[in-house]
Amino acid sequence: MEITHIDHLGIAVKSIDACLPYYEGVLGVKCYNIEVVEDQKVKTAFFKVGEVKIELLEPTSEDSTIAKFIEKRGEGIHHIAFATPSVGDALEEVSAKGVQLIDKAPRRGAEGMDIAFLHPKSTCGILTELCMEGNK
Amino acid sequence: MEITHIDHLGIAVKSIDACLPYYEGVLGVKCYNIEVVEDQKVKTAFFKVGEVKIELLEPTSEDSTIAKFIEKRGEGIHHIAFATPSVGDALEEVSAKGVQLIDKAPRRGAEGMDIAFLHPKSTCGILTELCMEGNK
Repeated sequence: MEITHIDHLGIAVKSIDACLPYYEGVLGVKCYNIEVVEDQKVKTAFFKVGEVKIELLEPTSEDSTIAKFIEKRGEGIHHIAFATPSVGDALEEVSAKGVQLIDKAPRRGAEGMDIAFLHPKSTCGILTELCMEGNK
Repeated sequence: MEITHIDHLGIAVKSIDACLPYYEGVLGVKCYNIEVVEDQKVKTAFFKVGEVKIELLEPTSEDSTIAKFIEKRGEGIHHIAFATPSVGDALEEVSAKGVQLIDKAPRRGAEGMDIAFLHPKSTCGILTELCMEGNK
């Protein structure tokens, strides 16, 4: 598979508002976008650090997967997303190598990206996303 | 604080050998260095993905902090390291802003870097390292 870079890190937080002073005031990185992804039941806030985006994920409902993650493991890094030129081709390739897929085909994620998740059982314990700029 | 990029992600794993087939064979990123850091009781393996290094951390002893992390939370991302031009200056600045420090002064880490850790209590739940190329 060709991976060009880490596109983003998804970080589960209880409250984006409570974390903004740390990211903006301490680390000095500026939030450039906040959006709600209704079907994922999350509010997201984006920052850019070099070539990598940091995506804060705040649950908007108690039955959000992010709420469950925080309940079980506490706040922290939820997933890592690698940029690849074709998510479809990459899924085919890793599936043939025995990697367990969460998404069998690319779907539309935040910021208009085409995304798919691999199961942490096959990725040394880290929920892993493959993504690329979508055809808008 | 000036952060230029994410220098690396520290990932806690039970066994580097068991994870190499995933990183090299599935993701297609090549391990370029393996070293043991005796005083941290870890074996480390380095990969490069774009501008970010991935550092796998395998405990070499049951009382290693990485062994305790895995016991408590399972394998996964252990810390995030931001590159900054001066770790000393950055520590002074964030300390003045009330951030709780694990290291009050820079110390020498893997690959000859000068490093210091911030406490997750002050960083929205993520163990955070500041680092820069050391004076070798």
